[in-house]
Formats: sequence, structure tokens, C-alpha cells
Amino acid sequence: MADTVKFDRIAIVGAGLIGSSVARAIMRAGAAKTLAVADANDAVIKEARDLGFAHEFHADAKQAVADADIVILAVPVGAMASVGANIASGLKPGAIVSDVGSVKEGVFKALDPLLPDHVHLIPGHPVAGTEQSGPAAGFASLFDGRWCILTPSANTDAAALDRLTRLWEALGSKVEIMTAPHHDLVLAITSHVPHLIAYNIVGTASDLEEVTRSEVIKYSAGGFRDFTRIAASDPTMWRDVFLNNKDAVLEMLGRFSEDLTALQRAIRWGDGDALFDLFTRTRDIRRRIIDAGQDEETADFGRHHEE
Amino acid sequence: MADTVKFDRIAIVGAGLIGSSVARAIMRAGAAKTLAVADANDAVIKEARDLGFAHEFHADAKQAVADADIVILAVPVGAMASVGANIASGLKPGAIVSDVGSVKEGVFKALDPLLPDHVHLIPGHPVAGTEQSGPAAGFASLFDGRWCILTPSANTDAAALDRLTRLWEALGSKVEIMTAPHHDLVLAITSHVPHLIAYNIVGTASDLEEVTRSEVIKYSAGGFRDFTRIAASDPTMWRDVFLNNKDAVLEMLGRFSEDLTALQRAIRWGDGDALFDLFTRTRDIRRRIIDAGQDEETADFGRHHEE
Repeated sequence: MADTVKFDRIAIVGAGLIGSSVARAIMRAGAAKTLAVADANDAVIKEARDLGFAHEFHADAKQAVADADIVILAVPVGAMASVGANIASGLKPGAIVSDVGSVKEGVFKALDPLLPDHVHLIPGHPVAGTEQSGPAAGFASLFDGRWCILTPSANTDAAALDRLTRLWEALGSKVEIMTAPHHDLVLAITSHVPHLIAYNIVGTASDLEEVTRSEVIKYSAGGFRDFTRIAASDPTMWRDVFLNNKDAVLEMLGRFSEDLTALQRAIRWGDGDALFDLFTRTRDIRRRIIDAGQDEETADFGRHHEE
Repeated sequence: MADTVKFDRIAIVGAGLIGSSVARAIMRAGAAKTLAVADANDAVIKEARDLGFAHEFHADAKQAVADADIVILAVPVGAMASVGANIASGLKPGAIVSDVGSVKEGVFKALDPLLPDHVHLIPGHPVAGTEQSGPAAGFASLFDGRWCILTPSANTDAAALDRLTRLWEALGSKVEIMTAPHHDLVLAITSHVPHLIAYNIVGTASDLEEVTRSEVIKYSAGGFRDFTRIAASDPTMWRDVFLNNKDAVLEMLGRFSEDLTALQRAIRWGDGDALFDLFTRTRDIRRRIIDAGQDEETADFGRHHEE
């Protein structure tokens, strides 16, 4: 990668699944002369240091960001403001401050008033992840072939946006630019509401008394188990997503519920044609996702069926 | 497998994903001296014959079931009655008639009045499958380690039940016995409602105008793509499931919607603790499904992240 962008110093605040994956991908790409990672949690930063996926490890984010050209905040959306307040006075002029949160307008509003005018705030969101958490769950190839959405504002410096774009490309991502409100609407339907209904069905199932919890587990291969993967995602991260993307989530949830009520009515009245039509239409979306390289073709997610 | 149960003749009606997998598993186990497969669809039975996963292939189910010791109906639940009417007069005394449908009370009620008294009707449901359809999608190991639920009635012959149980065990399944109504309730929450909400969210997403369809596909890795797999399942099969398990599905859907309304309210009023508590509880269910061997441990369903 001869033309890979290279920075003197990059700092990542937060060493969980995403932060540690960004760190590993930066090391793989050789994108930083010095990569500093910080995490306020003693156990997490110790584990990160043991794993060794950066050059420096700090308990205090302010030490990590000192003199950094790019700072990536990889903390739950609800923690952005306190991290921003902590690091603000330590940021060097011209530094780019970005993040990996799943909500973009809320992050901009939280950070913009706190950061000095001499830094470039460009929120970002790599659309990638797994249901696991913590520094050991990260891996360098997490962003390969996945989209990273950047949400600059009208007066964002074009050169800074270009540098951040090239960093994400060096980490394997394809980069897309859109406004923060549009991001929040798109992700509400492609990510936030799917997580919410997965959490909800798992909750409903585990509350049933006529059906025992062991039956819910035993017969989960009928479809339910797919939802439990998503519903195993990090609770703090997802609480913050819903609290910080309230309007778009409630809007999409309203549409979902409206459509579900229509399906319920079709079942009650035995309208087989309405069911068949929907079930045929949805099959086509799956096909297009596979064709777009956004999921694998193999049946059943490639779960192992051979002995 | 020296003690594997062996039958002189087994007939399978329906050569799709499940029927062809049962056939392949029977051949793998050597469980039938003669295995006959029938499908009323010309293209399907031709494809099945080309694939060669049985000894005999018939367009007419009545020819396949003649003199069979066990007949397995692997057709959509809504087609059981017409198949039953067709084969009834060709069944030999003492034959076991079973099926693989995802609804059990409806299947029993459809077949029981049609079949002669001299056969044993024991509905069954292997809880296994993929989102794909057709004879080429089947494979012999589909049932390995998965549960097969049999739903005998109060006066089912014990010896016949035992023989059917041993067949499924020879195909790799673990067998569980329960009543048909209990089966339908358990599967409503572990399979039917999960499928319904997956179909529904994919429908809602594809209808959005503010969010383009290409965006829904591009950013599907945020969670949505998991739902599209399930929502790619066979439309005819699933239409019939919902029409034939109406009461249990509507009951479970009512609970799901009630719980979703509570979550919606928690988001609207910013009740982070309620969200966090649910999201923590659901993580435990995932853990128990993995511990029970009903799903794999690997992150993100083991999707490939390496180049």
C-alpha cells in the first residue's frame, strides 16, 4: 500500500470491540507512526496493553490525544460529551476529531459546543460490528468491504474531510458522505429498529410461562436463534443509541407497527394472498443484499451442518 | 450403525428443501431398502431424479406410497389435505403416515378424517431448515443434532411411535414428544412470530421513500441483513403456517406488540434503565442457546472477515 495515508499520531479513545478493531486496522495498514489508545476502565486498558494492538496505552484520554493529528472517539454515544470535555483543552490546532457512534446528529450536538474552534469535528460511523464486546473481540479486518459513513457539516474543511476519508479507506472501508439527520434516519431502519425488535422478541419469549425457557432455547433453530445474536449486543451502547436517536427510531417503529398490524389482520382474516405477496417481495431484497456483497450467499449464514 | 432401524419401503411426498434432505439422510443412514420420492411438480421431480437422492422417483404420490411402511409428507401445510385425499386408498394396513410441517394441530385435523383407520397418523416436525428452497438446497446432515418433535394423540400405537422415533434418530435428530397444541404454541414464539417480524421489517424498509432501497441494501450490515435471511424463506410454506396456526400466532404477536409498545414508551420518555435491563437480560438467553449447542459461538455467525 504505497499510497496509504500516514499520520504522525493517531489517538483512539475507547478500547472495546470497535476501538480495538480500529487500532488493529491502523496497525495493519501502517497508517500511524504512533498510535495511542486510551480507556478510562482499568481492566479494559490493562487487557488492551496485554493484547498490544497499539504503540501507547493510556488510562487518561487527554494524554493519548496530546499532539494527535486524528482522534477517534470509540465510546458509547452517551459518553461522548464527558470525553469531549476531558480532551478539549489538550487537542492540537488542526486536529481532526471523529468518532464511530451509531448516531450522528446527537454526537455532533454533544461535541460541537465543547471542542475548540481550531479542530475539525467530523462525525463518522463504520457500519460494521459483531455481537461481542471488549478489546479481545476486535479484529483488523472488521471494516474490510464495509461502508463507513462520514457526516461533515456545511462548513467542514475539505482537506480534513479528505484526510479522514483516506484513513478509513486505508482501514478497508468504502466511504460515503451524507448529512447527520439522513444518516440517523437510514440507520434507524437498517440497524436501530432491527436491534430493538430483536431485543423485544427475545424478551417476550423469555417471559412466557406456558412455554418454558428451556423450550425457547431447545427449539430456537426454528428462527428465534438468529434474533438472539443481535440481542446479545452491548447493552450500554444500544441504550445510548435509542436515547440519542429517539425521533427517527420512533418514526420507523411507528411504520413497523403499522405494517405489523396489517399483517396481523391478514392472518386473522385468512388473507393468504396478502401474506404471499409480501413474502415474495422480501425474498428479492435478500437477493440484492447478496448481489451487493453485503452478505454471504451460503445458506443459514454458513452454519456448519457437517459433522 | 449396526442397530439402525431399517424399513422395507419409505415414501416421501414432496422433494423440496426438507423432503430432499430427509431423503438424503435416509440414504446416508441406510434406513430403507427402497426409498421412493414423489413430487407433483414436473420440474421438481425431474431435478430430484437428476440429483438421484432416492431409489425411485414418481410424479404421482399414490405410486410412491404403495406398500410403504412409512410415508413422510413434506409439502406445505396447506397442501396436506389434497395429498392425503390422493394417497389414502393406496396406503397399506399398518403404515405410519407422518409429515414435516411447522404446524401440528392443523395437519392432524386435515389428515385424520381422510386416512383409513388401518394406518398410524403421527404428525412430526424436524426443527431445522435454511432460507433456501428446492431439491438442490437439501443436504443429508440438516437434522444432525436438531430436535424433531412428534405429536402423537392419546390413542397412538406405542410401537408405531417407537419406530418413527428410531427413524428420526437414525437421521441424526433428537426426538421430543409433546401434544400438537403445545407444539404450536412453542413454535409460534420460537419460529413463526420471528419469521413474521422478519418479513415485516424487510417490507417496512423496502417501502420507505425518505430512505432509498439502495441505502437499505448498502447499510444492511448494521443488523438488517440478519432479518433478510429469514425473510427469504419459502413464501408458500410460510403463508400456510400463518393461516394454519392463527390462534397461537395472534396470541404471541399480541404479547410481542404489547412489549414493543412498552419499549417505545421507554424510548420516548428516556427511561434508559428499562432499556439497559432488557438488553442485559436478553444477552443471557444467547449464552444459554450456545451452551445448549443450538447455535455456534463464533461472532457474527462466523461470517468471513478475513480477506
